[in-house]
Amino acid sequence: MRAEVIAVGSELLTPSKLDTNSLYIARELGQLGIPLVRKSVVGDDRELLCEEIRRAQACSDLVFLSGGLGPTLDDLTRDAASDATGRPLLMDESIVREIEARFRSFGRPMAEVNKRQAYLLKGAVKLDNPRGTAPGQWLQDGARVLVLLPGPPRELKPMFAEQCLPRLRAMTPSRPLHSWHGRVTGIGESDLEQRIGPLYSPCSTIATTILSSPGDVQIHLQGQHGGAVERLAGQISAELGDAVYSTDGRSLPEIVADLLRRTGLHLAVAESCTGGLLSGRLTDIPGSSEFFAGGIVSYSNGAKAAWLGVARDTLERFRAVSGQTAREMAERARARAVEALGEPAVGLSTTGYAGPSGGSSGDRPGTVYIGLADSAGSLVRRRQFGRGRKRVRTLTVLGALDLFRRRALGLKIP
Amino acid sequence: MRAEVIAVGSELLTPSKLDTNSLYIARELGQLGIPLVRKSVVGDDRELLCEEIRRAQACSDLVFLSGGLGPTLDDLTRDAASDATGRPLLMDESIVREIEARFRSFGRPMAEVNKRQAYLLKGAVKLDNPRGTAPGQWLQDGARVLVLLPGPPRELKPMFAEQCLPRLRAMTPSRPLHSWHGRVTGIGESDLEQRIGPLYSPCSTIATTILSSPGDVQIHLQGQHGGAVERLAGQISAELGDAVYSTDGRSLPEIVADLLRRTGLHLAVAESCTGGLLSGRLTDIPGSSEFFAGGIVSYSNGAKAAWLGVARDTLERFRAVSGQTAREMAERARARAVEALGEPAVGLSTTGYAGPSGGSSGDRPGTVYIGLADSAGSLVRRRQFGRGRKRVRTLTVLGALDLFRRRALGLKIP
Repeated sequence: MRAEVIAVGSELLTPSKLDTNSLYIARELGQLGIPLVRKSVVGDDRELLCEEIRRAQACSDLVFLSGGLGPTLDDLTRDAASDATGRPLLMDESIVREIEARFRSFGRPMAEVNKRQAYLLKGAVKLDNPRGTAPGQWLQDGARVLVLLPGPPRELKPMFAEQCLPRLRAMTPSRPLHSWHGRVTGIGESDLEQRIGPLYSPCSTIATTILSSPGDVQIHLQGQHGGAVERLAGQISAELGDAVYSTDGRSLPEIVADLLRRTGLHLAVAESCTGGLLSGRLTDIPGSSEFFAGGIVSYSNGAKAAWLGVARDTLERFRAVSGQTAREMAERARARAVEALGEPAVGLSTTGYAGPSGGSSGDRPGTVYIGLADSAGSLVRRRQFGRGRKRVRTLTVLGALDLFRRRALGLKIP
Repeated sequence: MRAEVIAVGSELLTPSKLDTNSLYIARELGQLGIPLVRKSVVGDDRELLCEEIRRAQACSDLVFLSGGLGPTLDDLTRDAASDATGRPLLMDESIVREIEARFRSFGRPMAEVNKRQAYLLKGAVKLDNPRGTAPGQWLQDGARVLVLLPGPPRELKPMFAEQCLPRLRAMTPSRPLHSWHGRVTGIGESDLEQRIGPLYSPCSTIATTILSSPGDVQIHLQGQHGGAVERLAGQISAELGDAVYSTDGRSLPEIVADLLRRTGLHLAVAESCTGGLLSGRLTDIPGSSEFFAGGIVSYSNGAKAAWLGVARDTLERFRAVSGQTAREMAERARARAVEALGEPAVGLSTTGYAGPSGGSSGDRPGTVYIGLADSAGSLVRRRQFGRGRKRVRTLTVLGALDLFRRRALGLKIP
């Protein structure tokens, strides 16, 4: 069995819009062991879309269409599917009544044009859509299935999960998949590939997916034999050591949050070059007031001195981007949290040149200092994160979180 | 003339990886007035890829392939293109020498497998790739063009810009395009569509693209007649009024930064529910220390009182999520900036329930207060931003920036 996804809509061919439904569908199919062999985007063109459906059905058993089920004349998925399969569209009175009821609940009459959404391909099963007016359709012809899904992700995902997955499960032999989801920070993608490629390449029975973003590489292993997955995960963990910060898919901010919750410590943050993003990542986590004391974004020297209490002398003698300033920022953030909360706290700080420009003293853009202060003392690390303002800021946020993780777990701090 | 893009690579069919090269190519083709009618992703499968190239060439004059040009046996784009076009692959000795030289510059010998990259389709022109080992190929057959491009964006983009665009320009009649790039906040996508759809729909000579993200809708107009583009832009601006915050594509943080620079004011921020993201958006802008005084992330009540100086009495009587607290947060942030800098400043604050949970007093998630304090006094607005923690936080950041914009420009504040 193999699958294809066709996303429908001219807006998905514009420079700033991407089809993301296919990512969700790929993940769900992957869980069932059904390979996605191809995906495509076609504009609102009945002829092209008909041709695309024909071609996909000739090659794959399962074809998923997303979008083009709305009420307007631009919404051509139903018609194109009818052309491609040779099945007429028949009006379903129960759908008309549902759409009318939905409009009534908003206190509005149903526009005549909405009746377009009430047509089903002959032989298709209606897929309910409580979150929108466009129902989906499931057309099964022996082992061949054509599925019409609405475009908005908030309508597509629950429809797929609730009405397609049970049908797909019934069609696939049951075989539980074992998986491992490791995450790594502090090792670049190519370096990592070189180190673990020789480990996973020979394992043809384990599907390995590596996803890289700056400062964070995710390694997914999936296979039918739990023992084999566990063995490979163990080899990878042994090779990469404590750079593997997560073995269950949790993100670095989540790991830090859990370490803080476990120790009862609160984190106080003083940010210069990351300008609020470190606090932003931590407060992304629901319930973060349990472990996040607060943050001070001291971008200017004035704020570093007056808001945070870094000594003017330190700023003048060593400059804002220096180990001394980073250390004092972390210490002052911690002191403020201890004062404010009367509870044990850890201070974490960032200062550096995010770019595009560097320091007047010749420091390159990407030069960053990260500081940490806890009850045992304080420490500072200098990092060189290369170029790209956004990238440097992201790497600094992750570098600060990793510094805390290593300190909390008693690991070596490079 | 019409175009298609085929992205090659099994990794692009996994749940977390998207082809983004096609967005770049779509934009560049759009500038030339060449429509992109279809795009697809095909895995590393020679037969499927050959079929895909044949189908694309049957339908479109211009077919761009990205990826699959590496040295390994998984890199099948050259072979599939040869199968599809019936043109043999011929080794180009000059490419071999270039790859050898590249490896020598790294101090490494060239592995034999790299010779795979030295084969060109018979009749194709080599596209140089100074940033990688895989050269591209441009195969022109009358008006039909097949282009092979490397997958990494940092190799593909300059190759396209420097070596494909000049050739494409020579093939398209010269016609300068006029454009307008408006941005709107505070109006939802469907409401906006209903209001401006009747304006742009009849203008068949102007390409209109609408891109929506939470709290920010971008409207691109592009056409050959400057007068017509200007007229439609004027009609849209008149309909949407001061919700149009930008007419040249600048983002809302950039607009706010420019207003601050122009007035010499500094912005001080006190964030609760946005937890650093408002500061983060402002410090994204290079040189933000010119207009950004600093931020305090006071997520907990302790931090609101001890770090910011909000009266404990206010927090107890009105709670943390209230107009009174938002007002005091903005006033205190402003006072701290005036103290710290001795310069005129504006305070901006956020407090609310980002979700998933709401307030114990029955306030729904998505209930947010935004406060502003300047030399003329202070004001507060209550907003109801619906559900979704990330969405609510983004809408609050944009809502706070828009509150400042409206205050600075003397516009009505809803």
